[in-house]
Amino acid sequence: MLKTRFTELLGIQHPVVQGGMQWVGRAELASAVSNAGGLGIITGLTQPTPEALVKEIERCRQMTNKPFGVNLTILPSLRPIPHEEYAKAIIGSGIKIVETAGSNPAKFIPMFTDAGVKVLHKCTSVRHALTAERHGAAVISIDGYECAGHPGEDDVTNQVLIPACVDKVKIPVIASGGFADGRGLAMALAMGAEGINMGTRFMATKEAPIHDNVKNKIAEAGERDTALIFRTLRNTSRVFKNKIAEEVVRIEREKGVNTKIEDLAHLVSGERGRKVYEEGDIDLGIWSAGMVVGLIHDVPTCQELVSRIVAEAEAIIRGRLAKMVA
Amino acid sequence: MLKTRFTELLGIQHPVVQGGMQWVGRAELASAVSNAGGLGIITGLTQPTPEALVKEIERCRQMTNKPFGVNLTILPSLRPIPHEEYAKAIIGSGIKIVETAGSNPAKFIPMFTDAGVKVLHKCTSVRHALTAERHGAAVISIDGYECAGHPGEDDVTNQVLIPACVDKVKIPVIASGGFADGRGLAMALAMGAEGINMGTRFMATKEAPIHDNVKNKIAEAGERDTALIFRTLRNTSRVFKNKIAEEVVRIEREKGVNTKIEDLAHLVSGERGRKVYEEGDIDLGIWSAGMVVGLIHDVPTCQELVSRIVAEAEAIIRGRLAKMVA
Repeated sequence: MLKTRFTELLGIQHPVVQGGMQWVGRAELASAVSNAGGLGIITGLTQPTPEALVKEIERCRQMTNKPFGVNLTILPSLRPIPHEEYAKAIIGSGIKIVETAGSNPAKFIPMFTDAGVKVLHKCTSVRHALTAERHGAAVISIDGYECAGHPGEDDVTNQVLIPACVDKVKIPVIASGGFADGRGLAMALAMGAEGINMGTRFMATKEAPIHDNVKNKIAEAGERDTALIFRTLRNTSRVFKNKIAEEVVRIEREKGVNTKIEDLAHLVSGERGRKVYEEGDIDLGIWSAGMVVGLIHDVPTCQELVSRIVAEAEAIIRGRLAKMVA
Repeated sequence: MLKTRFTELLGIQHPVVQGGMQWVGRAELASAVSNAGGLGIITGLTQPTPEALVKEIERCRQMTNKPFGVNLTILPSLRPIPHEEYAKAIIGSGIKIVETAGSNPAKFIPMFTDAGVKVLHKCTSVRHALTAERHGAAVISIDGYECAGHPGEDDVTNQVLIPACVDKVKIPVIASGGFADGRGLAMALAMGAEGINMGTRFMATKEAPIHDNVKNKIAEAGERDTALIFRTLRNTSRVFKNKIAEEVVRIEREKGVNTKIEDLAHLVSGERGRKVYEEGDIDLGIWSAGMVVGLIHDVPTCQELVSRIVAEAEAIIRGRLAKMVA
C-alpha cells in the first residue's frame, strides 16, 4: 500500500493512473486498470459522438465497480469537434473524475467543477499548471518531455519539471511521461509528486484493446525508438520511430522552418494511425509512444502490472533506500 | 550519511560528484567539494599545458587532504590537443580518480587502470556505457539529455536513461545532468544509481572561480532558460539561452541541415565563452548550463550545498517516503 494525497483525494487504492490515449482508452482498458486498484480513464474523443461516449461509460460501469474517469482533450483539429457536447455528456453520465488536456482549461474546468466533478488537468509546463489550479483543477498531471503524444515546445524533462511544478502549485501533482515501473513511481514520489500517470506502459497490457503486434513492438523497443515530429509546425508529437515517422523527420529536417502541414498530410492521417492499432501493421501510420518503450519488456495484465509497480516501489523505499540511510 | 556502492568504492563521504567543467573546474572548486565530503574534480583541459595541470593538482592538494579527481575530455577540436600527454601528467601526479568523457575510452581507460587509477567514464548512452565497462571503467557516470554541454544526439532523459543503464552494466552507475537538490539525489538512488554528478549547481557556489554575474544569472533562471545548439552539426550542446545562443538557434532553424560551422564560428569561439566567466558579461559568448538552472535559486558554499542535499535526500527517504508505505 502506498498512500498519498492523491489516493486519499480520489479514494483509489494505488497512485497509478492510466491517462487518456486516442484509440486505446476504451472501457476494456479503463475498467481493468480501475479493477487493479489504479485509476482507469476512458478517452472521450475516441468515441465518435457524445452519445457513443455515454454508452462507452455505461459499458465500463458494467465491467468495474471502482472509480474511473474520462479524458477530454481540447486541441486544434481539422474537423470541428463539439467539445462542449462531450463535456455535457460526461457530466450527465454521472462521471466524477475527468482528465482535461490541451488548451482552454479556463472554459472547461469550471464546467466540470461546478457539476461536482474533480478535474485532473494534464499539462506540460508550470505556467499552465498554475492557470489550471487557478481555474479550479483538483490535481495537476504534469507531463514531461518523455511523454507520448504532445510534450509541448519547452522540452523540459520530468527530472526538472516535477520539482519545478510542485514548488509552485498547492494542489496535488501527479507525474506523467516516462513511467513504466516501480523505480519510476519511487522517483516521482521522491521528487514531490503524489502519483504517476502512464500511457505507453498500459498499451502493452493484455487488456489494451489494440493489436498484439503493437504491444509486442513496444515490449521489444529500446529507449531510442521514439521520435519527435511536427516540431517545425510547433505542434510537436512524440511517436514510435517507424518508417513513416522517419520519413516525416527527414522532410522536416530538409524543409526546416518552411515545412507546411501539406508536406506531411499524406503520411500522418489519424485514420492511418487508428489502423495500426486495429490491423497491427506497425508501419502503416503514425502512432504515439513514449520514450519509456525502452523500459517496457513484457505484456502483463493490468492487475499484474499495477501490483508489480507498487510492490517494487515499496521494496525500493523499505529496502534499497532505507539501507542507504541506515 | 548516505552509503552506496559508489561512496564505498571511492572512500568518500557523500555520493555527490562535481564533474569536469571547462574554465570552471579549478583547484578552488574541486578542493571545496572534496572538503565538503563529495568528490571534487579538476578539469584537465582548462589548464593550457600538461605541466600547468600538474601545478593545478599540486595547488588543489594544498587546499584539501580528501580525495579529488581530474577530468580528461576527449572531443574533436580545431586546435590539436595532446590528450596522451595530459593523461601521463595525471598519472605522474599520483591522482587515483579520473573522470573520462567523450570518445576513445578504448585507448585511455586502460592507460589509467593499468596505472592503478579508477576511471569514472561519463557518457550519454547505454551502448557507450557498456563499451567503457568492457574497457575497465570502475564507474559509469550516465549523462542525460538535461545536462549542460554535450548530451549526445539520442535525447534520452535521465528518467529513462538511468534505469536502462543500470539494467545493463554491472559496475556502479552515478547519474549526471539535471541534479541540484536532495529530491534529485533521492530520485537517482531510487532509480538504481549510486550517486549523482552535478556541474551547473556547483557553478552557482561561493567557491566556483567564475564571475558573480554568472552565478546570479543561474540562480535567477527558469527551467526554460537553456537551449540546444549545434544540433544541425550533430555536435549538440546545451547552453544558457542568452542573446548569442538565441542567434545560433535562429541561424540553425533557418539553414537547417545546410548549416555549416562557418555560419556560426563568429558567435561561438571558446575564448568568448571563457570571457563570460572571467568578466561577467552574460551575453558576450556561449556558455554551458544545464536545464537544472530552473531548480537553482541561491549561491551557497559547497559545504552548505552538499550538506543540504544529503540531508534533504535523507529526510525524503526517512520521512516522506517512509510515511507513504507505513
